[in-house]
Amino acid sequence: MRLFSLSISDLSSKYPLLANLRRSPLHVFRRNPSPMDGAEASLRTALTEKQTAVDAKADTVRDLKARGVAGAELDSAVEELKALKLEATEIGHRLQSAISSNDGGGDGAVSREAFRQAAVNTLERRLFYIPSFKIYRGVAGLYDYGPPGCAVKSNVLAFWRQHFVLEENMLEVDCPCVTPEVVLKASGHVDKFTDLMVKDEKTGTCYRADHLLKDFCKEKLEKDLSLTAEKAAELKHVLAILDDLSSEQLGAKLKEYGINAPDTKNPLSDPYPFNLMFQTSIGPSGLSPGYMRPETAQGIFVNFKDLYYYNGNKLPFAAAQIGQAFRNEISPRQGLLRVREFTLAEIEHFVDPDDKSHPKYKEVADLEFLMFPREEQMTGKPAKKICLSEAVSKGTVNNQTLGYFIGRVYLFLTRLGIDKERLRFRQHLPNEMAHYAADCWDAEIECSYGWIECVGIADRSAYDLRAHTEKSGVPLVAHEKFSEPREVEKLIIAPVKKELGLAFKGSQKMVVEALEAMSETEAMEIKGALESKGEVEFNVCTLGKAVKITKNMVSISKEKKKEHQRVFTPSVIEPSFGIGRIIYCLFEHSFYMRPSKGGDEQLNVFSFPPLVAPIKCTVFPLVQNQQYEEVAKSISKGLTAAGISHKIDITGTSIGKRYARTDELGVPLAITVDSITSVTIRERDSKDQIRVSIDEVASVVKEVTDGQSTWADVQWRYPAHSATASGESSHQNEI
Amino acid sequence: MRLFSLSISDLSSKYPLLANLRRSPLHVFRRNPSPMDGAEASLRTALTEKQTAVDAKADTVRDLKARGVAGAELDSAVEELKALKLEATEIGHRLQSAISSNDGGGDGAVSREAFRQAAVNTLERRLFYIPSFKIYRGVAGLYDYGPPGCAVKSNVLAFWRQHFVLEENMLEVDCPCVTPEVVLKASGHVDKFTDLMVKDEKTGTCYRADHLLKDFCKEKLEKDLSLTAEKAAELKHVLAILDDLSSEQLGAKLKEYGINAPDTKNPLSDPYPFNLMFQTSIGPSGLSPGYMRPETAQGIFVNFKDLYYYNGNKLPFAAAQIGQAFRNEISPRQGLLRVREFTLAEIEHFVDPDDKSHPKYKEVADLEFLMFPREEQMTGKPAKKICLSEAVSKGTVNNQTLGYFIGRVYLFLTRLGIDKERLRFRQHLPNEMAHYAADCWDAEIECSYGWIECVGIADRSAYDLRAHTEKSGVPLVAHEKFSEPREVEKLIIAPVKKELGLAFKGSQKMVVEALEAMSETEAMEIKGALESKGEVEFNVCTLGKAVKITKNMVSISKEKKKEHQRVFTPSVIEPSFGIGRIIYCLFEHSFYMRPSKGGDEQLNVFSFPPLVAPIKCTVFPLVQNQQYEEVAKSISKGLTAAGISHKIDITGTSIGKRYARTDELGVPLAITVDSITSVTIRERDSKDQIRVSIDEVASVVKEVTDGQSTWADVQWRYPAHSATASGESSHQNEI
Repeated sequence: MRLFSLSISDLSSKYPLLANLRRSPLHVFRRNPSPMDGAEASLRTALTEKQTAVDAKADTVRDLKARGVAGAELDSAVEELKALKLEATEIGHRLQSAISSNDGGGDGAVSREAFRQAAVNTLERRLFYIPSFKIYRGVAGLYDYGPPGCAVKSNVLAFWRQHFVLEENMLEVDCPCVTPEVVLKASGHVDKFTDLMVKDEKTGTCYRADHLLKDFCKEKLEKDLSLTAEKAAELKHVLAILDDLSSEQLGAKLKEYGINAPDTKNPLSDPYPFNLMFQTSIGPSGLSPGYMRPETAQGIFVNFKDLYYYNGNKLPFAAAQIGQAFRNEISPRQGLLRVREFTLAEIEHFVDPDDKSHPKYKEVADLEFLMFPREEQMTGKPAKKICLSEAVSKGTVNNQTLGYFIGRVYLFLTRLGIDKERLRFRQHLPNEMAHYAADCWDAEIECSYGWIECVGIADRSAYDLRAHTEKSGVPLVAHEKFSEPREVEKLIIAPVKKELGLAFKGSQKMVVEALEAMSETEAMEIKGALESKGEVEFNVCTLGKAVKITKNMVSISKEKKKEHQRVFTPSVIEPSFGIGRIIYCLFEHSFYMRPSKGGDEQLNVFSFPPLVAPIKCTVFPLVQNQQYEEVAKSISKGLTAAGISHKIDITGTSIGKRYARTDELGVPLAITVDSITSVTIRERDSKDQIRVSIDEVASVVKEVTDGQSTWADVQWRYPAHSATASGESSHQNEI
Repeated sequence: MRLFSLSISDLSSKYPLLANLRRSPLHVFRRNPSPMDGAEASLRTALTEKQTAVDAKADTVRDLKARGVAGAELDSAVEELKALKLEATEIGHRLQSAISSNDGGGDGAVSREAFRQAAVNTLERRLFYIPSFKIYRGVAGLYDYGPPGCAVKSNVLAFWRQHFVLEENMLEVDCPCVTPEVVLKASGHVDKFTDLMVKDEKTGTCYRADHLLKDFCKEKLEKDLSLTAEKAAELKHVLAILDDLSSEQLGAKLKEYGINAPDTKNPLSDPYPFNLMFQTSIGPSGLSPGYMRPETAQGIFVNFKDLYYYNGNKLPFAAAQIGQAFRNEISPRQGLLRVREFTLAEIEHFVDPDDKSHPKYKEVADLEFLMFPREEQMTGKPAKKICLSEAVSKGTVNNQTLGYFIGRVYLFLTRLGIDKERLRFRQHLPNEMAHYAADCWDAEIECSYGWIECVGIADRSAYDLRAHTEKSGVPLVAHEKFSEPREVEKLIIAPVKKELGLAFKGSQKMVVEALEAMSETEAMEIKGALESKGEVEFNVCTLGKAVKITKNMVSISKEKKKEHQRVFTPSVIEPSFGIGRIIYCLFEHSFYMRPSKGGDEQLNVFSFPPLVAPIKCTVFPLVQNQQYEEVAKSISKGLTAAGISHKIDITGTSIGKRYARTDELGVPLAITVDSITSVTIRERDSKDQIRVSIDEVASVVKEVTDGQSTWADVQWRYPAHSATASGESSHQNEI
């Protein structure tokens, strides 16, 4: 999969090689920055002018003083200077707020930051996740899921398996993380899976080159009000094209701006590529290099032949894998969003390239949700609600199967509890996609860090299977037997390697590949030109230039043949899920604060749907006595029998505090034992309570947490219970 | 966990350091070999004598010929020689079969081998598991689970989570595989997690030193009939003590027997330790070494403080983790049983060392199963059925909590489908255990490779938490608040480091540690001796010798103090599950062959219980027609709604072939659509069929596969269907 790192391995891309383009979740803002706001630009100009006026007036004052002039003339000049300075300050303030609002920053940024802090504090305090190896001061980019986080993760994965693997009859596999070099050489990761790095020339500390440039530009834009409008525009442009910069260009910019190591101010080395795979050695000899897989997809591709056979030699079929993947980030940031080890869930759906229809497409065709097609992005328009069937029929989405998966991903994410309004499907721009990709859409979720790429859904055509076919020599192909032999006209392109070798030396291979990759139309055009003129200009994208091809270098013809079957490399459509990112966004979308009953404190709540809630329900005896505890235990038995994860809390803490603790873990329902015949059930978000007899309680909880009924359904059937007796309180921080 | 690798990190063991002792699943046979059978020994002696007689007679014949003697004298000598040779051959045959039967070999070994071949062929052909990266010729010790294997694995893990985590309210965590060096330094893995290796001195090929010695001894014993009884006994002894040999001893034996590199016959290097962890580097600097974790337990230990807090600062509690672990084996063998990457499921149950009772102990106390206590192993007796409560009350099993987990593991394994008769709990011998361990039992499952250690259940006392407390400086301790202050007498051992440093130089640290580790009794003895004689011999196990301690080197006293709370390091009881090993044994225990209907072929069946079966049921329209297919689809919808994993097979293949294919995947039930109102349900092992109306079919399947009813229960409620119409057939190999 290419999640967060498209276009590794596109050696022969028709587009510029953008090795790191997709590695930043914020790239959308960067790639399509709002053009500098008119107000900001004119304020910058006004400020520059005003500052010039201030300087001129200050010169005048100094001049007057030097000449010994005093009295009214000097006083008036000083007053004018003061007035100009005040005006400049005032323009400065207006500029500052214009910058903040353009940035989506300002008050919004402050409150987003505060919201994130509150959520993250709760998440870490309640052990949803914590930095790994904390007692040894941790390792950047490695996190543990504690008990509630681990339960949420396991619920998300169980639902993923249900929603995709079981409902679609996918072939799930489970491959090792340790991967020999040859596999990742074939996939392109060994050569191309890199980030550009610079080193502090004295201390050796490493930095991501693009991060330093980005931080410099952002800080300048935000804090340096003396920046001219032109300079500001230039920095904004740099931010926009940051991901497209070559190693040399990036190095030149760092030099031009005089950027040094942030910690020491020492000079920096030139940028150079750092491979993001964790390297190791397989076996004791030290002669078999291996890597920790950077994605799970390759395990599926190398097994294609066996899986196709397992599926009765029939297409289409999908294989799936859930597992750990590893990326040795240079400097991980943003908590769970950019980590060195993470869980991926990937699907490789293999189809006949000539038929990308999907039998279940109509089940999702009527869905309507936020989409952000290429067109809208390039013309500066916002994402908009589109009906999936319209997007597919108009060709905005390349084909039915791709559309089907976009719809299924939408259903998956919203059922988990992702807010529909903060979820969009963004199409890759032409220069973001590998040359072989037919189309590519990311499910992006908005959180306090911006729009985060959480699922990538790409039609990767036949690229991966071809790469492994070539490297391994094992044909990873499908067969379609014809009911009777067919006469077909086949295009034969036969490069004459000897002639090409003489003409192009080291570049021969690239020319040969480009010739062989021609479409029928292209080939026939070239053939015509060669026949009429004897030579032709031919564009070789991997060389980045056109070369002159003469008649003796290639023979192009069409032959008629009888064929009994069609042999072809299937296309693959790949939905790839970053599970940790989805979970983090889910945490943010579920988190809110509400005042305690006394109003003196803000209480934290996670409004997880029952499907993902770490525990479905808690059982609280209202006061500590043996009778109530017996009842609580018998209810617990009933819940266990019904397969409902729950917890009994028999501490003497006030019921209000116990509710508050449980809300903070996102537990949907709480059963309070306040009699020996019936109990109350409280719903987390409404805080409403109903009274239910002890015999029925397990089945009511099951109904709601299994999703057969809503809370509103059961609330209607049972008497309401007034909450006054059991004051909602606070003190979450105590535990 | 110490599964397959006990006593790494027991730097100060009171027993010899047996770093690799537990790494071979066959160690039990090796450690307790049947003493050489009397028959074998006397046959070896008889053969040696007979061979001497043959040689003498041959000399006589040669002598007669040389002297020109012919006629009757020569003829009779030749006849005698022939007779002697025949006798020698006959003794040879008897010896051969005696060796085989002692070995558990002979016909048994042949049939075990054939059984394994049949099972493994089926497993690989149906993609239960396959060698990873096959198209690149694979990597030893790495396997993929294909679709049915992956489903079995995910069922086993789901049941593990249900049986342990949910039913016991354990705190599940999920930590990264990439681990910084400091953590594994503290645990002892960096220094001690090694196997002894030798290198081909010319080609550099690496071998496990103990494997070469073992192979040599076994081959000699099996094939060299001229071996004297003494020599044979020696080789058997070597096999028995193989795991206890030091690097030097192992090297000496290899030299003594003239063992060379098996492939090239080149000389070998001396044995040297090879660390079994996959090493890597975290971050770009190359200055932060890391390893892929060799077990998941350390992730729990380093989080003890947070988890204890999460549990309300109360003991006991258990934490659990399921995840990948990695061991860079020198030369992996035995398929899924010895691999370089595997899934572990580990539990760390933290208890007060003064109270190892368990509240739910009585729920398992009455279980009775095969146990193999130390006593039985050392006196050459077999494993025997013991009631758990008896083993605990007699002290055979050290404490209730350990006993509770042994019982729970027994229930877990047998519910998965492991044969009770081929499951035993074997206690570690004193020299197998680390010095700190209180007691240790392995759940061993018998398969074609012998008795395989699949779960280790150890009381590791406070070792792990202490090691991390020391290294990190963060106290990993528990507190017990007293209701009122208590007066306690405390032992104070204060080594005088200056004096000890002068006396012992580099060994000072070991002496200090040994002094501080003294029990109260030991300390008071030493104190007495120092006071009366001024010096004392003191055994320092980490130095492997006794040293002389004088009065000025240590002060030992007892002080009275008032204490408000007790601060202590909890003990940990650790059940650790090798999931891949359990699954492989489950495959073997479930596999059998039965003749096809025609009797012309053997058909393969996996008799998985529904709990672990990869698919619960298949749906077959008897013949290809639209009506039946519609019925099949509507049944499929009902099954999906009931959450039952299933597959429709609408190929035109004969019903018998389809049954055979499905038996080979271990699918418990098959629904055959042979009318539009009712269908038949066939049970895999009995091949019995019942007729059930279409409306009821999903609920009947659910009842049986959920385990609410047995097949016998439902068979009694519905009419039987004769199988004659739908002949059981064969042809599994076609797919």
